[in-house]
Amino acid sequence: MPQPIDIAIIGATGSVGETLVQILEELEFPVATLHLLASMESAGSNMMFAGKKLRVREVDSFDFSQVKLAFFAASPAVTRSFAPKAQQAGCSVIDLSGGLEQALALVPEANGDKVAQLTHPALIASPSAAAVALAVALAPLKGLLDIERVQVMASLAVSAQGREAVSELARQTAELLNARPLEPRFFDRQVAFNVLARVGAADEHGHTSLERRLVDELRVLLDLPALKISVSCVQVPVFYGDSFSVAVQSRRPVDLVAVNEALEAAQGIELVEPDDYPTAVGDAVGQDVVYVGRVRHGIDEQEQLNLWLTTDNVRKGAALNAVQVAGLLIKDMV
Amino acid sequence: MPQPIDIAIIGATGSVGETLVQILEELEFPVATLHLLASMESAGSNMMFAGKKLRVREVDSFDFSQVKLAFFAASPAVTRSFAPKAQQAGCSVIDLSGGLEQALALVPEANGDKVAQLTHPALIASPSAAAVALAVALAPLKGLLDIERVQVMASLAVSAQGREAVSELARQTAELLNARPLEPRFFDRQVAFNVLARVGAADEHGHTSLERRLVDELRVLLDLPALKISVSCVQVPVFYGDSFSVAVQSRRPVDLVAVNEALEAAQGIELVEPDDYPTAVGDAVGQDVVYVGRVRHGIDEQEQLNLWLTTDNVRKGAALNAVQVAGLLIKDMV
Repeated sequence: MPQPIDIAIIGATGSVGETLVQILEELEFPVATLHLLASMESAGSNMMFAGKKLRVREVDSFDFSQVKLAFFAASPAVTRSFAPKAQQAGCSVIDLSGGLEQALALVPEANGDKVAQLTHPALIASPSAAAVALAVALAPLKGLLDIERVQVMASLAVSAQGREAVSELARQTAELLNARPLEPRFFDRQVAFNVLARVGAADEHGHTSLERRLVDELRVLLDLPALKISVSCVQVPVFYGDSFSVAVQSRRPVDLVAVNEALEAAQGIELVEPDDYPTAVGDAVGQDVVYVGRVRHGIDEQEQLNLWLTTDNVRKGAALNAVQVAGLLIKDMV
Repeated sequence: MPQPIDIAIIGATGSVGETLVQILEELEFPVATLHLLASMESAGSNMMFAGKKLRVREVDSFDFSQVKLAFFAASPAVTRSFAPKAQQAGCSVIDLSGGLEQALALVPEANGDKVAQLTHPALIASPSAAAVALAVALAPLKGLLDIERVQVMASLAVSAQGREAVSELARQTAELLNARPLEPRFFDRQVAFNVLARVGAADEHGHTSLERRLVDELRVLLDLPALKISVSCVQVPVFYGDSFSVAVQSRRPVDLVAVNEALEAAQGIELVEPDDYPTAVGDAVGQDVVYVGRVRHGIDEQEQLNLWLTTDNVRKGAALNAVQVAGLLIKDMV
């Protein structure tokens, strides 16, 4: 067991921050002192950790030299302000906000070996939930397939956009069921009983920053810098749990038996039998794995592999991945 | 104006059947007498058409020699039982059930010219709602692109499975919002606030009959019999309106200006500007067109065209297409 270290969580009161606190406790992570930090508005509340009540303090006045590791689960802007200060104070940073482009994206099941190459204090990104799910599922297949292209359609839960988005889906749904007029607030239109074609604004080429981020992260995580990835991220009226329809184009016929064996043997994956399939609500939520189902060829096409993935976007896609990265990091620190 | 003809609708009390009656009236289709037919359980009720109350009669005892054209909007089994009788009695058949494999799939915007080649009485299929949407959107692009492959992720509304499915989504949602325990009935699991990885059972290769049907129909409608199509149809918690994420792989760079011009000029399409996007609920429901948005290249890939489509699965995807086919057919009959 590594020696306990002092840790800070920035954005502790958000849903990812809360899940981080919960997972550190569940996994009995070797924490000496845990510092919970948030913006001025959210500071002052108390949260429970390992049987103790901890006060959430303001990040602005925090002295990062008190900790060896900081999880950034606030906004990208907060991360960009404080992560450099943390690193200067000798503290390694695991960013969950997507705010640090220079940070190395890490998913232990995919490129955990890269931890050995880091210099300390390290700057690490726990990538987008979609990239985590796809990297966990595709990394064990990399050697089996001669991948030409990956095509992803991501059906994303509203919780990735925080608690307000969760409340808004509930509120819109209740109003519609009660036949009251709908006034969208958080989203710019009706998300209840609807699918929105994109999550966030599109750039001049029609892509969202989330889609571009997913492509960049996946290339790093799979160590395939020139991989062709086509991706559409859509917003579905689901509270928690992302789902992915994935088609992998290989340059040679795909051996489904070998694919199933590799998925079965892989870390972080639960393979679901062909007569069933996993769903966000029924399987993924609250779990520590990426569920994989509907493993099949394309119709009339042996060179294509189709998969269906689902995972808890807040837990496995964000908080748990960051804690697993931290686990590798502290082993490496010793 | 063609001479009015006698018409039968089989499955008149279902949601597609009802929409057929409504559209025949709205478009002032040249109907002499309209016969509304249904199974024994549904017969006996009355429906309004053009200001008159019509009684729904049993299909079993109907004499098809009374009509020149019959729309089959009941189950595939009903179609297989009665369509041959209709045809033997000299009545042309437009099947909306998917029950007749030998019927020619027609979507006026895509392959309407094929009507001229039919012998009468004709056997025509109005294809699956997904095939209608995709054919309408892709037909005007066929000449512009050197299509290598089409990749489709279809997010399907529950209404394709009839009124029971619509009620079930409403019931499940209400129970969850009221924190009551959920007992799925029509669907085998929770569909509210969830995405189901497939619609219907999978065959030994993992494909559903809907996915195979979509591939077959699209190859016919686009007149590209060897087209590679990869398709995943998932069930989303949406009442009405299907949405599609489409990636078309071309063998040469895609000219987006030309694509936009072709879509703008095409019949049956409403092209939505790049700073906006269409949704099922906000745009498609109740409308007569396929909405197209998010027209863009792939990320780092000029040979790929990405599109987002949404359409009313019951209206444009089924009833309206069948009536438009009937319009071509009666012109041809004269």
